[in-house]
Amino acid sequence: MDSPQTRRVRETAHEYTELTLPNDANSLGTLFGGKLMQYVDIAAAISASRLARSPVVTASIDSMTFLRPIRIGQLVVLRSSVNRVFNSSMEVGVKVLVEDLMTGEQAHVSSAYLTFVALDREGHRVNHLPQVVPETPEEIRRFAAAGVRREYRLKTRASAH
Amino acid sequence: MDSPQTRRVRETAHEYTELTLPNDANSLGTLFGGKLMQYVDIAAAISASRLARSPVVTASIDSMTFLRPIRIGQLVVLRSSVNRVFNSSMEVGVKVLVEDLMTGEQAHVSSAYLTFVALDREGHRVNHLPQVVPETPEEIRRFAAAGVRREYRLKTRASAH
Amino acid sequence: MDSPQTRRVRETAHEYTELTLPNDANSLGTLFGGKLMQYVDIAAAISASRLARSPVVTASIDSMTFLRPIRIGQLVVLRSSVNRVFNSSMEVGVKVLVEDLMTGEQAHVSSAYLTFVALDREGHRVNHLPQVVPETPEEIRRFAAAGVRREYRLKTRASAH
Amino acid sequence: MDSPQTRRVRETAHEYTELTLPNDANSLGTLFGGKLMQYVDIAAAISASRLARSPVVTASIDSMTFLRPIRIGQLVVLRSSVNRVFNSSMEVGVKVLVEDLMTGEQAHVSSAYLTFVALDREGHRVNHLPQVVPETPEEIRRFAAAGVRREYRLKTRASAH
Amino acid sequence: MDSPQTRRVRETAHEYTELTLPNDANSLGTLFGGKLMQYVDIAAAISASRLARSPVVTASIDSMTFLRPIRIGQLVVLRSSVNRVFNSSMEVGVKVLVEDLMTGEQAHVSSAYLTFVALDREGHRVNHLPQVVPETPEEIRRFAAAGVRREYRLKTRASAH
Amino acid sequence: MDSPQTRRVRETAHEYTELTLPNDANSLGTLFGGKLMQYVDIAAAISASRLARSPVVTASIDSMTFLRPIRIGQLVVLRSSVNRVFNSSMEVGVKVLVEDLMTGEQAHVSSAYLTFVALDREGHRVNHLPQVVPETPEEIRRFAAAGVRREYRLKTRASAH
Repeated sequence: MDSPQTRRVRETAHEYTELTLPNDANSLGTLFGGKLMQYVDIAAAISASRLARSPVVTASIDSMTFLRPIRIGQLVVLRSSVNRVFNSSMEVGVKVLVEDLMTGEQAHVSSAYLTFVALDREGHRVNHLPQVVPETPEEIRRFAAAGVRREYRLKTRASAH
Repeated sequence: MDSPQTRRVRETAHEYTELTLPNDANSLGTLFGGKLMQYVDIAAAISASRLARSPVVTASIDSMTFLRPIRIGQLVVLRSSVNRVFNSSMEVGVKVLVEDLMTGEQAHVSSAYLTFVALDREGHRVNHLPQVVPETPEEIRRFAAAGVRREYRLKTRASAH
Repeated sequence: MDSPQTRRVRETAHEYTELTLPNDANSLGTLFGGKLMQYVDIAAAISASRLARSPVVTASIDSMTFLRPIRIGQLVVLRSSVNRVFNSSMEVGVKVLVEDLMTGEQAHVSSAYLTFVALDREGHRVNHLPQVVPETPEEIRRFAAAGVRREYRLKTRASAH
Repeated sequence: MDSPQTRRVRETAHEYTELTLPNDANSLGTLFGGKLMQYVDIAAAISASRLARSPVVTASIDSMTFLRPIRIGQLVVLRSSVNRVFNSSMEVGVKVLVEDLMTGEQAHVSSAYLTFVALDREGHRVNHLPQVVPETPEEIRRFAAAGVRREYRLKTRASAH
Repeated sequence: MDSPQTRRVRETAHEYTELTLPNDANSLGTLFGGKLMQYVDIAAAISASRLARSPVVTASIDSMTFLRPIRIGQLVVLRSSVNRVFNSSMEVGVKVLVEDLMTGEQAHVSSAYLTFVALDREGHRVNHLPQVVPETPEEIRRFAAAGVRREYRLKTRASAH
Repeated sequence: MDSPQTRRVRETAHEYTELTLPNDANSLGTLFGGKLMQYVDIAAAISASRLARSPVVTASIDSMTFLRPIRIGQLVVLRSSVNRVFNSSMEVGVKVLVEDLMTGEQAHVSSAYLTFVALDREGHRVNHLPQVVPETPEEIRRFAAAGVRREYRLKTRASAH
């Protein structure tokens, strides 16, 4: 009712960092893909919570790329924000950088798009989420791209089994 | 060279199980999405290894749905196999079931599609992977669907920034 | 009352796999015995649950051998089933193999026998468990051997302080 | 030699976040002090690395207070920066806030001061660290307070056994 | 009321050991400072519990030094006891040794002083803790030193913002 | 050669403690059997190392009983020592107590017997271990019982497939 009708994208933005540990290494000495997925899910959940201010759960990963390996000991920096809200679901984007603490250099290692839904205290889906308002050109580009991704998903799922 | 030119899908099949633990619970008492992603990545990596017989790394998650929450203490059963090989990459499919150990009932909780690449001992990408041969109607359906998903990805990535 | 009076051994069978991680390595770079014990207990508990369809707890490890070291990164495959039921307890057998994912070769690394009891919702011991029916020659051999092991335990415990 | 002689405090600043998990709860359902110490050490190490651009190790915790309990599921936000450099050691300050993701409210839960040293690749102590330059009134206050704390430590350690 | 008015220091003494694991290594292959802090907190909490016989929480770390690095695989031995009680708080001292299991040699790696408070079942601070009685010259020395450290803390905190 | 020919049992004795954590709970809220096995293995390995002063690995668990459940939050106290040496292997006994930190009461929860072997730096089995000398009546009783257990194992393994 009197929940805010809109939020700025930047109010949902979060920067989450993780230090990679030996236990998270595959046989090549680089970070397991599954561990990075776990970090991405936490980062995305923080942004989704800032939008909904209620418990949130992951509904789908729509895309996540792994552009280069991450070495153990490197700092993983995850920047997340809500790209767009679709009534009862929202797309969260996460950009993952790796920072070499010895040099300060950062490199882009992954981009991910996830869909979250919010739940009320009884575990029922929240139907009317606040919309996010994109302000910068980058935010506006992501808002539009989120719509394209959603259309594709609706189309392909309709035709699936 | 003398690596096998083909493998049957069933030679890449694996059933992986995990017992969910309290530490993997979100504030609603159900399994974190990120933890399920981690299980899915391990299951998929086992199938990809059985195809390539060399180290493998995740290149992308192309889609992963979360159909219903998993309660802590339930047994998660992950069935993975390689759906199709595209020269130097392969699509692995993972179907996730949850089994209630008190009743024996199983329910479908997630489906995931991931792309893996294989690396040689120096960390270079293996270019000629053995192809998988689908035999059952279900395997043939997945082989075809993997091609459709790949086309979409190539198209959308070409148009992305 | 109307609980099933018998189950086939194969209805209690489970194959459980674990990927060994760096944190589970001793100073020789091989898997800690205690970590393998933990995997064995989980595998055995799944089979015991499939027999009892109620919560189960470990009553004893009666024997567990470690035939050869397991290297970190190898896949551990645990095959468990209920060997025999003794009114309110059951013996579960676990055979542990290690699979080298690069070659597909498997080797036998451990055999374990554990006794489990089942508890009802109030935590009281369930006195009338369904019996398992061995069908294959191997299952019949294990059924008999479980009886021999139990007799030894009863005899030696009677004489212990 | 040509290493930078000075850095701004803000170049060493980092915001590190952690989501508290059930396994980190004491018998009262709040975060173990030891777990918060671990987060503080990681946050401080990131700031120390940004100053030294070489491996760093903790030399001492000089003070850390726990002002109020942290509930499991809350987001812990740790803000760290280098307060002052003393030739071969540096004081790092960490301010810990807890954010309730349901309301967005933040509360101050801990302040910590740690001393770090930097090591070169052979593990020898780096003797000439870049100095930090405090710019804001707050940074200048912390720079002065770090000197007072150091004097006390030198005095009390001289008199200890 | 009828709680014991005093306890001997030795009744609060505990020896706690931990085996260091690969996941706890920093990039130099030695134990993270933050992990040792976590061990120290657990050891201190056990001694504080033995004094108070009620739930305890860390109020502050007053000092903790790291004298030399700990290699992964070494055994960490932590000796803790309550040094002195101040009405509703107590100082616990922890001396940390590292034992090389191949030679049996022990070396002193850290000393820590922490303040704990006890809570009743409703989470309220317990105001009248049993006092500890130092008996040996070493215990008497620590009792006196705890008083000096407390005075310094009261003085510096009074002058802090 | 000049390695000590004998050690006293008490030189191999160790007391190891662990605080049980929420993640180690089964669905009944008590400690997983597999977690206690892991603690027992670590405790036994410390005693075996003190005898051999070289790397040690578990060869078998010969018996481990679970007498009563352990609640999460309780302190587990494990007392281990080498019972007897048989040329190239040794039996280690572990007695497990649980201490309620609120009352100080201890209860016996498990007894375990494990066989360890020692390895040299190349990973070959050490053939001539120092013998342990039992001194107290309890140590002498355990020395004798270890011989009986070994005879049974040799007999039953000879008759096994």
